[in-house]
Amino acid sequence: MDGSVKKIAVLGSTGSIGQQALDVIRALNTRFQVIGLAGGKNLKLLEKQIKEFEPEMFYSSIRPDFTYEGKFLPMEEMASHPEVDLVIIATSGKVGLSSTLAALKTGKTVALANKEVLVMAGEIITHEASYHHGQIRPVDSEHSAIWQCLRGEESKAQRVFLTASGGPFYYYSDSQLSKVTVEQTLQHPVWKMGKKITVDSATLMNKGLEVIEAHWLFTIPLDNIKILVHPQGIVHSIVEFKDGSLKAQFSFPDMRLPIQYALCYPERVPGSGLPRLDASKIQSLKFEPVNQSRFPCLKLALDAGKQGGTYPAVLCAADEVAVELFLNGHISFTDIPRIVQETLEQHQSIAQPCLEEILAADAWARGYARGWRVR
Amino acid sequence: MDGSVKKIAVLGSTGSIGQQALDVIRALNTRFQVIGLAGGKNLKLLEKQIKEFEPEMFYSSIRPDFTYEGKFLPMEEMASHPEVDLVIIATSGKVGLSSTLAALKTGKTVALANKEVLVMAGEIITHEASYHHGQIRPVDSEHSAIWQCLRGEESKAQRVFLTASGGPFYYYSDSQLSKVTVEQTLQHPVWKMGKKITVDSATLMNKGLEVIEAHWLFTIPLDNIKILVHPQGIVHSIVEFKDGSLKAQFSFPDMRLPIQYALCYPERVPGSGLPRLDASKIQSLKFEPVNQSRFPCLKLALDAGKQGGTYPAVLCAADEVAVELFLNGHISFTDIPRIVQETLEQHQSIAQPCLEEILAADAWARGYARGWRVR
Repeated sequence: MDGSVKKIAVLGSTGSIGQQALDVIRALNTRFQVIGLAGGKNLKLLEKQIKEFEPEMFYSSIRPDFTYEGKFLPMEEMASHPEVDLVIIATSGKVGLSSTLAALKTGKTVALANKEVLVMAGEIITHEASYHHGQIRPVDSEHSAIWQCLRGEESKAQRVFLTASGGPFYYYSDSQLSKVTVEQTLQHPVWKMGKKITVDSATLMNKGLEVIEAHWLFTIPLDNIKILVHPQGIVHSIVEFKDGSLKAQFSFPDMRLPIQYALCYPERVPGSGLPRLDASKIQSLKFEPVNQSRFPCLKLALDAGKQGGTYPAVLCAADEVAVELFLNGHISFTDIPRIVQETLEQHQSIAQPCLEEILAADAWARGYARGWRVR
Repeated sequence: MDGSVKKIAVLGSTGSIGQQALDVIRALNTRFQVIGLAGGKNLKLLEKQIKEFEPEMFYSSIRPDFTYEGKFLPMEEMASHPEVDLVIIATSGKVGLSSTLAALKTGKTVALANKEVLVMAGEIITHEASYHHGQIRPVDSEHSAIWQCLRGEESKAQRVFLTASGGPFYYYSDSQLSKVTVEQTLQHPVWKMGKKITVDSATLMNKGLEVIEAHWLFTIPLDNIKILVHPQGIVHSIVEFKDGSLKAQFSFPDMRLPIQYALCYPERVPGSGLPRLDASKIQSLKFEPVNQSRFPCLKLALDAGKQGGTYPAVLCAADEVAVELFLNGHISFTDIPRIVQETLEQHQSIAQPCLEEILAADAWARGYARGWRVR
């Protein structure tokens, strides 16, 4: 620790990752100072967070019903504010895209929990990061694991194996799957997460998005990124090197550890009260190859990743709409891949799109997917 | 690869590790040149190796029955020869001690497969290495795993978990153990190794020696080095960091991989025909805490390590004699820990011994242990 206090903006502070990031910062409050907080619609929680952390800047996606003397600033401005050292992008869906770009263009360090950002615009994001010397640190447990295994290595990964809990329905039959409720879907067996990502975990869309995210973060060809179902959720990923050696990172499944690692890197600090896994009590670690055919969202994501262009953006947008429709009770669980697939099929992709073309594809896909319900 | 050819001396070239090291060098012959070969009593094999590699220097522990134009040099002189860049210490027992010291005192890199060297004289060896800027690279699969997991990390390991196959008799009863034959003992379930280490694996003495070796290599308190029985032999060790994150290294169990890693470090080179483990085919990895009480050699080693002084040297010497007596049919398998224990009990240890005191303790212990048989 170099003694200086890092100034942090947390975008998406009222979501699950945002709250856990604030837990980490609270426990390590001699190292970090929150100078920006941006929340969504949960104004009550945002107000509480603002009272506690007293940031210079704040933002909410709806008009705040409380008064606070700090500056009300759009997320892009907060992310690129000269005083900010590190930005945590804990938003979900496409919301974090422009703020991530703004932060990277001003050479900041971004702790990125919002995987759609890289899925939608991986080429642009990684290019801007490298051009402006911005740094992307993964927060997803799988990508944090790969990052930790690659630490100090001179060579890239030859292959990586992302682990997947499989979600709550991995062993369900097709007919069982068509009847699952929202409530069942939100009971994730291992991780405590937001609603959108919990549904994406149950459809395995989340794992498909993670494959594309890993491709951009670590410059690994998509075909060299494999998935292993590991319902225990202890091993977070495995890296295979060109000499045939493999490394795995594992820990108690708690998102605060990868968040803390991303904030404190390159230091490792004693867990601020985080639960620890005792390796001497591990009796067995189980893995199985993923059954792609039973979870069509996974194949849709992998195909969209390989096709590239604006397909991944359309995938994200259609999925975001479909998950929302499912959460609101308008469609069934098995309708989610149907909406995503039809939207992708109807899309005219653009190769090597610029940001505007990506956002246009996103808008088109949202419109198309929303229309699906009424037919 | 910086393009220059590394000049290597292999001490113990006719043993199991020595032969496997030459396999690695043969496959990577544009990187390495063998300029010294030292063998034991297997003159036929040594002559064959010399014909193939045409080293400038050679040595054999008995008078060679062949003629060769290269220089016949003692191992210490070979290890410290100005032209040598890297010395592979693939001897077993105490034989490698003075050569390891000679190499480190001349600032060379030592790939160390002879664990007794560090067990007997860890404090002296690590001090000389640091003082003369010599480098010790572990070759044992467990220590290579820890070294790989620590790569690029700023902080030391908080705890390490050495994995143990458990050897061929791990689930034997006491009465079964007392009747095992030499032939059964030499059938190791996972690793292809020399006779001495194969017997040490069956008594678990080897694992105790490895704990002491890890203590010196990675500056970890002995109490923070744990043992996990893992009969599959795939996971080679686990490192726990202070933030609660854990890393494991694993691979197909083949000693040529850690040998190659030690020779090529910091590079990883595509396995020169080595068998690879396909992570997608791992179904389960099993671990269990070690049962110390059934394998007294393990406890004797851990206790000797904690007591320090000349106890670890006496442990090594008594074990070397006991294993030889067992291999020659003079004592039973369960006599091995008896001899070691009695020798340790009779020993008057010296605290912070110098090299001469260590060698004197070694000589005393060999004499005492050899006498055990005739009572």
